[in-house]
Amino acid sequence: MEQKKRSNRRPGRPRGRLQGNTLARDALLNAAEQLFAKKGFTATALREVAAKAHVNQALIAHYFGSKRGLFEAVYMRRGMQIAERRMELLHELQAARQAPTVRDLVRAYLLPQFEMKQEGPGGLAFVRMQARLHNEPEEIAFRLRRKVYDESAVQYIRALEEVLPSIDAADVNWRMVFLIGAYLYMLLGVDRLEDLSEHRFASTDDTELLDRLTSFAEGAFKAPNTYTRTKRSPRKSAGAEPNLFDKPTV
Amino acid sequence: MEQKKRSNRRPGRPRGRLQGNTLARDALLNAAEQLFAKKGFTATALREVAAKAHVNQALIAHYFGSKRGLFEAVYMRRGMQIAERRMELLHELQAARQAPTVRDLVRAYLLPQFEMKQEGPGGLAFVRMQARLHNEPEEIAFRLRRKVYDESAVQYIRALEEVLPSIDAADVNWRMVFLIGAYLYMLLGVDRLEDLSEHRFASTDDTELLDRLTSFAEGAFKAPNTYTRTKRSPRKSAGAEPNLFDKPTV
Repeated sequence: MEQKKRSNRRPGRPRGRLQGNTLARDALLNAAEQLFAKKGFTATALREVAAKAHVNQALIAHYFGSKRGLFEAVYMRRGMQIAERRMELLHELQAARQAPTVRDLVRAYLLPQFEMKQEGPGGLAFVRMQARLHNEPEEIAFRLRRKVYDESAVQYIRALEEVLPSIDAADVNWRMVFLIGAYLYMLLGVDRLEDLSEHRFASTDDTELLDRLTSFAEGAFKAPNTYTRTKRSPRKSAGAEPNLFDKPTV
Repeated sequence: MEQKKRSNRRPGRPRGRLQGNTLARDALLNAAEQLFAKKGFTATALREVAAKAHVNQALIAHYFGSKRGLFEAVYMRRGMQIAERRMELLHELQAARQAPTVRDLVRAYLLPQFEMKQEGPGGLAFVRMQARLHNEPEEIAFRLRRKVYDESAVQYIRALEEVLPSIDAADVNWRMVFLIGAYLYMLLGVDRLEDLSEHRFASTDDTELLDRLTSFAEGAFKAPNTYTRTKRSPRKSAGAEPNLFDKPTV
């Protein structure tokens, strides 16, 4: 196994110290990405990462300080790439002569995740790692999510609020969060489509997934407001609301 | 801590052997539910479960056979309750004079999860445990999901296909899976609404969550078909499709 892995590398030793360091650092990031995606933060041992990368374990401390530092470096590497691509697509839409549609915005927001997944085994591992981030220790997950995704998501929400002036801003914001839940679930690769459709449909084609998720989200964002203007949210008029946990009226 | 827990119990010892057994079994289920929800299957130690339940650890093997058996018993207990409630609500809708609307169906499908969450600390722990089931070892998760939720989800999909005759059945099925992703994400309790809305909105109110998710899902299910009839899915007319991973046209 290790022999095979070694033989896949570029032949020849790294020539300079700098190049050698960069190769070892990248090898550690790549190995850690696979292991974190598969086993999560807690169950991944640094010993395994070093062995998979064919690098001395002491280099992890040298480059990343700690396991947490390594996890953050792995996450930031591709996470920032996704965030930047999102911003790039948004700026393109905003620079165009015509205002973007809801569909344009939703698709531009979702696309970079799927591009990343298609990039190869590293991209695939990253999207899985990201889709299960909420299972990692909260002190790690919380900071990373904010650092990597907040800016672009906030910008998309603002753009969606602009193109949906008749939709309650609260609905636009909630709907974005629901959409995040839906795509993270699909990126986990454990969805239930085949079972639940009784084997009529399967979610094996990412192009189809992106298309179907886009039309789903477009319809969802354009749906009528949840609350009418006189009772915008149950918190603001709690007394007047019926008990919404009653069974739905037939 | 343990003292405090004990003092919360009903006073007096169990009178009969049967009652004593049932109490111990329930205490184990309740303790395991809290721990599995918090730490997941792998990180939960049977020793901890027994200590939290104030029960001899040997009783776990006696009642449940193994840690996996315990996990399954915990999962089935409330999972079947949710599944049965879903079926009950569906039958009520189907028995009514008027055909159910998309909104009725979506709400009836989602409601039991939120009722369970409101039931108390056990219900809350269960919905969390369920929302992170995809992170548990696949040989456990796969079987449980199928056993507990497949039947009711399949019935709701059929009912939705019926009330949405103009929507491609593939879209109806995919949209149900997207909706499952969205509500599982919200049940995790780690969603990003407050951050992403720049503190304008928060997802602290379950009634509001259910209302907003219902309108989101209603719009999503009613959205126009993803593919027109001549090119229903990219797999069926792959040659003719443009590269859908290109950036969206502006």
